[in-house]
Amino acid sequence: MTDISNSLSGALTRIAGEVDACFDAMLPVPDDARKRLIEAMRYAAIGGGKRVRPLLCVAVAEMFGVSRDVAVRVGCAIEAIHAYSLVHDDLPCMDDDDLRHGKPTAHRAFDVGTAVLAGDSLHALAFEILGAPDIVTDPVLRAELVMTLAGASGSAGMAGGQMMDIVAEEQSFDLPTVTRLQQLKTGALLGASVEMGAILGRVPVDARTPLRLYAHDIGLAFQIADDLLDHEGDEALAGKALRKDAKAGKATFVSLLGPERAREQAQALITQAIGHLAVYDHEADLLRALAQFVIERKK
Amino acid sequence: MTDISNSLSGALTRIAGEVDACFDAMLPVPDDARKRLIEAMRYAAIGGGKRVRPLLCVAVAEMFGVSRDVAVRVGCAIEAIHAYSLVHDDLPCMDDDDLRHGKPTAHRAFDVGTAVLAGDSLHALAFEILGAPDIVTDPVLRAELVMTLAGASGSAGMAGGQMMDIVAEEQSFDLPTVTRLQQLKTGALLGASVEMGAILGRVPVDARTPLRLYAHDIGLAFQIADDLLDHEGDEALAGKALRKDAKAGKATFVSLLGPERAREQAQALITQAIGHLAVYDHEADLLRALAQFVIERKK
Repeated sequence: MTDISNSLSGALTRIAGEVDACFDAMLPVPDDARKRLIEAMRYAAIGGGKRVRPLLCVAVAEMFGVSRDVAVRVGCAIEAIHAYSLVHDDLPCMDDDDLRHGKPTAHRAFDVGTAVLAGDSLHALAFEILGAPDIVTDPVLRAELVMTLAGASGSAGMAGGQMMDIVAEEQSFDLPTVTRLQQLKTGALLGASVEMGAILGRVPVDARTPLRLYAHDIGLAFQIADDLLDHEGDEALAGKALRKDAKAGKATFVSLLGPERAREQAQALITQAIGHLAVYDHEADLLRALAQFVIERKK
Repeated sequence: MTDISNSLSGALTRIAGEVDACFDAMLPVPDDARKRLIEAMRYAAIGGGKRVRPLLCVAVAEMFGVSRDVAVRVGCAIEAIHAYSLVHDDLPCMDDDDLRHGKPTAHRAFDVGTAVLAGDSLHALAFEILGAPDIVTDPVLRAELVMTLAGASGSAGMAGGQMMDIVAEEQSFDLPTVTRLQQLKTGALLGASVEMGAILGRVPVDARTPLRLYAHDIGLAFQIADDLLDHEGDEALAGKALRKDAKAGKATFVSLLGPERAREQAQALITQAIGHLAVYDHEADLLRALAQFVIERKK
């Protein structure tokens, strides 16, 4: 696994630089009264995060010969949605967090109104990227990408999961409901990242099943790992407040399964995710390494 | 003008029913923990507002023989953006409004976190509608609609204008800056409504100029009328708090021009907007009536 791990580390560094460069180019700071908005968008989008979603999209797209430049731009659309969701989730009316990626949250660094608008503008930016004819030239693909990303981020996806997460503070969820919550809140966008790579690669719908199963499994494992980090992680390393779920009395994989079983479950899911990739040869090695990374990360 | 006014009144009633029916069908209330989110989306999207934007889209599309059903669905995508923007603009961190369309604002009827998420979900819904293959069947049109709507609603459009509006409380804007603010905050989405009707009607880009000029002029007139309503309107009729700009010390068309000159300016813009339509015959009568309505409305 050493070779794969090395190449994963290189791949993570590379995609981080590409995503930053892409946002930097798309968000020049204007010399007018919109300046604060664009600065807040840049603050939220540039220089933070593991960029797992763009890397998933690019890794899948490259398996099918898609130009890296195109895949990175599409990955940035996904990351714009992820970045907007973090800005809004951190708001005082939501999780009320002061720290994200080791620096003050957007509403702390700017103000709450600007943070709401910066989130909204990153949300729109995602679809500006996908709709632009100079990035993905085939409109059939553009339309399919839009449908996939919008569906994954709206009320039947990420935002729906976030609503369930708010309700989780008021109700005691059982394991199936927590699983559904996390599938929407985190899994939907991770799934869309893989799906959008496959769309770019013109993989026929019925040939996408292994990739979809892979995405489903790593999505759940990702969230179990998040719960474990929240339970036992290092705040300084994570760059955000931890132990919040327990304080809020929220049911999580860890509170329902205990840390040991949760850890076993995450590893079982990753083994299963890698199993789905058996139909592919070395071209899927990055996806295999990413699967393991998802549960071994420290932030 | 009586015939046109009568048909405008009928057209407004008809589009209101169609938009409500469309949102009702798209937003069934689920029997799970997402229930509150969907209820808040329905609360914000159904049964309120003049539906000027969908009507603009439908009126233009019908000039070029587009099926009404398709144009209404696309109009709902635009209205979803408008509805989300109102929910977010009303938040305590923004305009902090308690009343909208004569009923409590979404964050008052639900809670602030749910209102943020309902806005986000309506935002995503707009692109779910535009990306869906069963509504606009030609992907070329879908991609162009997405690009137009995303561009009009993001940092270079509506959200950028809203940012300027926040800054307007801190700085003294002159007339060109207020004009730019309003062009972004209100004009961009009204312009997109007309543009998207033209896209559906497959109007070549260079033949869209009269429609774009029309949209530009009614957009500014719409906002001057809004400033006049804020200055001298009836709160009960408007269904929202008025006199807010003066209290916040914000520069508006009325504060900069005075009510009389503002009124003349709005009428001049409408005359000019109708002038741009001279290239069309009776098929543009609804657009002509809508232009006049924009400055005569009482809410």
